[in-house]
Amino acid sequence: MAVGLPQPDKLLPVKGVQLATTIAGIKQGQQPDLVLVTFGAETVTAGVFTRNAFCAAPVVVAKKHLADSRPRALLINSGNANAGTGEQGLRDAQQCCMLLADAIGCAQEQVLPFSTGVIGEDLPMDLIASAIGRLPGLLADDTWSEAAGGIMTTDTVAKGCSRTLDIDGATVTISGIAKGSGMIRPDMATMLAFIATDATVARDWLQQCLESAVNASFNCITVDGDTSTNDACVLAATGASGSRTLDGRCDHSNAFQTALNEVCRHLAQSIVRDGEGATKFVTVSVESAVTLDEARQVAYAVAHSPLVKTALFASDPNWGRILAAVGRAGIEDLDIAGVTIHLGDVCIVSQGGRDPDYQESKGQKVMDQDEIVVRIALNRGKEQTVVWTTDLSYDYVKINAEYRT
Amino acid sequence: MAVGLPQPDKLLPVKGVQLATTIAGIKQGQQPDLVLVTFGAETVTAGVFTRNAFCAAPVVVAKKHLADSRPRALLINSGNANAGTGEQGLRDAQQCCMLLADAIGCAQEQVLPFSTGVIGEDLPMDLIASAIGRLPGLLADDTWSEAAGGIMTTDTVAKGCSRTLDIDGATVTISGIAKGSGMIRPDMATMLAFIATDATVARDWLQQCLESAVNASFNCITVDGDTSTNDACVLAATGASGSRTLDGRCDHSNAFQTALNEVCRHLAQSIVRDGEGATKFVTVSVESAVTLDEARQVAYAVAHSPLVKTALFASDPNWGRILAAVGRAGIEDLDIAGVTIHLGDVCIVSQGGRDPDYQESKGQKVMDQDEIVVRIALNRGKEQTVVWTTDLSYDYVKINAEYRT
Repeated sequence: MAVGLPQPDKLLPVKGVQLATTIAGIKQGQQPDLVLVTFGAETVTAGVFTRNAFCAAPVVVAKKHLADSRPRALLINSGNANAGTGEQGLRDAQQCCMLLADAIGCAQEQVLPFSTGVIGEDLPMDLIASAIGRLPGLLADDTWSEAAGGIMTTDTVAKGCSRTLDIDGATVTISGIAKGSGMIRPDMATMLAFIATDATVARDWLQQCLESAVNASFNCITVDGDTSTNDACVLAATGASGSRTLDGRCDHSNAFQTALNEVCRHLAQSIVRDGEGATKFVTVSVESAVTLDEARQVAYAVAHSPLVKTALFASDPNWGRILAAVGRAGIEDLDIAGVTIHLGDVCIVSQGGRDPDYQESKGQKVMDQDEIVVRIALNRGKEQTVVWTTDLSYDYVKINAEYRT
Repeated sequence: MAVGLPQPDKLLPVKGVQLATTIAGIKQGQQPDLVLVTFGAETVTAGVFTRNAFCAAPVVVAKKHLADSRPRALLINSGNANAGTGEQGLRDAQQCCMLLADAIGCAQEQVLPFSTGVIGEDLPMDLIASAIGRLPGLLADDTWSEAAGGIMTTDTVAKGCSRTLDIDGATVTISGIAKGSGMIRPDMATMLAFIATDATVARDWLQQCLESAVNASFNCITVDGDTSTNDACVLAATGASGSRTLDGRCDHSNAFQTALNEVCRHLAQSIVRDGEGATKFVTVSVESAVTLDEARQVAYAVAHSPLVKTALFASDPNWGRILAAVGRAGIEDLDIAGVTIHLGDVCIVSQGGRDPDYQESKGQKVMDQDEIVVRIALNRGKEQTVVWTTDLSYDYVKINAEYRT
């Protein structure tokens, strides 16, 4: 199903990071659903979280623990989001941390909990408690791929990415895993993404570095416009590679930022490629806008339009729907005569209507492809943005109509 | 397919109004697709139009003609929206007015043109020109139902509504027709709606009266969040009933406003009931908000959420998705502990999570119905609003993926 997304290459171990994955029985059908990631004592950690006002219990706890202590472990369950679960949900998330802290020997505040899955059901604490006992014995360096599988919900392909770079002779590794694949319109972070590096990174800069990478990746994707209650992206830097400290004030910091951006962009695009029911991978690029907000407004109006998305699903070059979506994006005083729209390299709209040279056969050729670029030039400013999205297919409806059955 | 929407009752003639409907051949399959509505010389007319920046050629012409003259006729074609057609589209819309003006003997500026259907294709002017010649011979008082059929596109049921009221002994009639049924998120007006009355109404107040009715009806509906390039709603008052003049300063004016509101609400709800692929008619009510904008923001976040809409399609009381949509509506400082959500009479969310008394069987009972009310109380102010919408079904995708094939 996923568009141009093979199983990930072997993910590289990151010095100072161990992972364990097991079957707790939260998901149906005996699938891996509980993942532990542990870090060495020197690790610094950054995180960005959902802006949804109803943020899930584990998000509340993870944010607090991240602010209060140096995390040593991430505990992630799939199959149940522990969201909309009120006080009981908070107690359960804390209980998870306590059990895990006992099992691996750290303080409860050093555990960050994450959950993804159905909203509104209590966590099956007995199943989780019993599985937590098994996790420490399963910890290993080279089990990133198993962990990527263990955090999946409706994802059809595990998502991961590794990069290495040389910092003054030390080889530094960045590895990350992520999961989608519905309720995707990050408004701050993404769905769950966990990234670790053995670079030595100053804690303050690590947060900036992550936010910058997230803005250019997870914050540029949308499947269905729904921001989850559980979105979180965590970046841990163990320092175990022995590299010099990166603090944002050297060329090596730039190289690290670039590599991190690549990892995040790969993971973010993977989430879209495996978006629920996706048959197309669509890049909506908006250029020459007055402000970045304006560019994003237009890009999301197009990327969220059910009519544009169903036309993409049908490979129908019904460019009028793109034009209509641009027109309703709410841009003040938009001069439609100045707007041009390209489908791939084919100009479809200019001067307020169909481009005089446009031929349906040219549009059809672009639409027949799996990967489509829609390029909108507003021709009134200098800002630009890009949003990655999917089409809207029967399978999107099927997956989400039958999610709990 | 339409939810609780039978064929309309016989629509009542309105004194001073005649209608004609014919097959021009714009739609495939020999279906009625060209409608003429004529008014007596004393008629005053009001209108509201789409806010889409790419508004269609007929909208541009109709707005200008309405501002410049006393309209005597509406000419409406279905099957082709004459939108995104640039200069050629404007010339075609004007040509339609000219041909019709010649045929019925009025000035070109007294004709308001309307089009609905596929975007981005030129009007088949030869077909329209030849059909216009037949229209005057078909004009009759009691052909409202045929006209309602002639303006349909993907609608499955014709939409119309009549009301009568007594004004100082004179019987006044209001009749209206409308069409949907996708690209429905009016941001000013609706899809096409044409309403006439034989009441005598002061022109200034007529516009106010229409705007007020539209705000409480067509501006409260959404199917897919897409605002059309062609939305328009016109109200004509012929004065032919001989009633006293209504100017907004008498009880009769209030009675008239109430009756008009009923007609508009019926037409607007009909559009939703016949929304593309609709299997549910959903009322999203938001109360105790600080501002009306805030209430609308929450209502539309829920009404547009693909995840809420697919759960509604599946009759799945997956209330967590409603909660997540409220949470991502972007309300500043929303205290989730204060929010309550009801599904019908069943409280599903209170104090930040599932209501302690909630049972899935109760939620299921509400969800199994065709008509569902979602009631959200923010408990932080005094404003309220209501939005009517549909679910998201396989058929929505099918209809819109196959629209041009």
